[in-house]
Amino acid sequence: MPAPDATAATNAPDNAYAPTDRTVPTRSRERASYDREMVHAILDEGYVCHLGFIRDGAPVVLPTLYGRVGERLYLHGSTGARPLRMAGAPGGEEPGLPVCLTVTHVDGLVLARSAFHHSINYRSVVVHGIARPVTDPAERTAALDALVDHVVPGRAADSRPANAKELAATAVLSLDLEEVSAKIRTGGPGDDAEDLGLPHWSGVVPVARVYGAPEPAEDLAPDTPVPGYLTRL
Amino acid sequence: MPAPDATAATNAPDNAYAPTDRTVPTRSRERASYDREMVHAILDEGYVCHLGFIRDGAPVVLPTLYGRVGERLYLHGSTGARPLRMAGAPGGEEPGLPVCLTVTHVDGLVLARSAFHHSINYRSVVVHGIARPVTDPAERTAALDALVDHVVPGRAADSRPANAKELAATAVLSLDLEEVSAKIRTGGPGDDAEDLGLPHWSGVVPVARVYGAPEPAEDLAPDTPVPGYLTRL
Repeated sequence: MPAPDATAATNAPDNAYAPTDRTVPTRSRERASYDREMVHAILDEGYVCHLGFIRDGAPVVLPTLYGRVGERLYLHGSTGARPLRMAGAPGGEEPGLPVCLTVTHVDGLVLARSAFHHSINYRSVVVHGIARPVTDPAERTAALDALVDHVVPGRAADSRPANAKELAATAVLSLDLEEVSAKIRTGGPGDDAEDLGLPHWSGVVPVARVYGAPEPAEDLAPDTPVPGYLTRL
Repeated sequence: MPAPDATAATNAPDNAYAPTDRTVPTRSRERASYDREMVHAILDEGYVCHLGFIRDGAPVVLPTLYGRVGERLYLHGSTGARPLRMAGAPGGEEPGLPVCLTVTHVDGLVLARSAFHHSINYRSVVVHGIARPVTDPAERTAALDALVDHVVPGRAADSRPANAKELAATAVLSLDLEEVSAKIRTGGPGDDAEDLGLPHWSGVVPVARVYGAPEPAEDLAPDTPVPGYLTRL
């Protein structure tokens, strides 16, 4: 039985997205994945995406936050921000904005003996689709919670929810996970056999994201405890 | 006297890029900067950009490496990769590809008492322009060195340079730094006065990128020393 969020029109198994012309890479196809769990895991490990759209005929790429609820991503911003107006939020001109949303994690620097075989270990997800304004109040609230919780899991419940004025100033967009692919490189360098005797060090330098100790706001009461969801980061 | 790389057609001082319609944000203008040194510093701290271009009328955003030499960025890839073919590398269809190249560093998670004022401390650079194939052999070599050295400074001189076959398989694109802006958020949360008494912890959680101990390739001779440019990372 298909899962409720499965894309009905595809022949892909329920645990994978159906590849399309634009989600099949021209190169390094062995690095591509359409596995839902893999895609969700890569998306859930991040919170900043790079959102591409077309403005006045030219590409624009902006960093922005995102959240995920099931097979739907959410974006938000001021109702005055250009991509949100373009997507048809209140006051906008169009009913939806074609976008490409990309999330990338760098895991390592791959140093080969040859300059040519240098590479990066990474995991990325690319989502193609139409970003559409979310107008249902309950979905908007859930989306904003998801955006906060994507950055710091558990934080949405420990902050003041948006009030009517703030909600009116905030546009929320949704982007369904339908045309999606991941791309992953892991492992060491792939030097050519004739280069193995060269004297250059080769291998991988791991790269990771770390969190420092939380720095309280200047106006925070001194006895305010650091919440558990922060010490666990 | 203008610097040799200054854009002659602008009225901007030599130490800044001239703002254009698409590099002036509609919101948070106080976060925008056109300062060359600031832009260079943000670019030089990274090595993975998100490159946006238009394919079949839709936006595409892909992560890729970049290098900088003065006021010019370089990208590279297989001559078979789509954006490189589209930019008019040998075998391509067009003399140049309109792109938007964005680099983002996340410096902190900003937790306000209100969900609305949550934010991210970040530094980003957005470059608009036309990516063009680099065909001059000397510039191609310098560009490939810059790409390797951008990831690991000092590495280009300590690896086997590309041979003729590898060079023939590699397309190099250039993108001049002319229409460029940085955007920077720093500091703590900006809660509204009426929220300061709420019991929620507020402040900043610093985020940083760290490097792990270099992991030698399985086929590396055991006595190969780890080079100084890696221990300094």
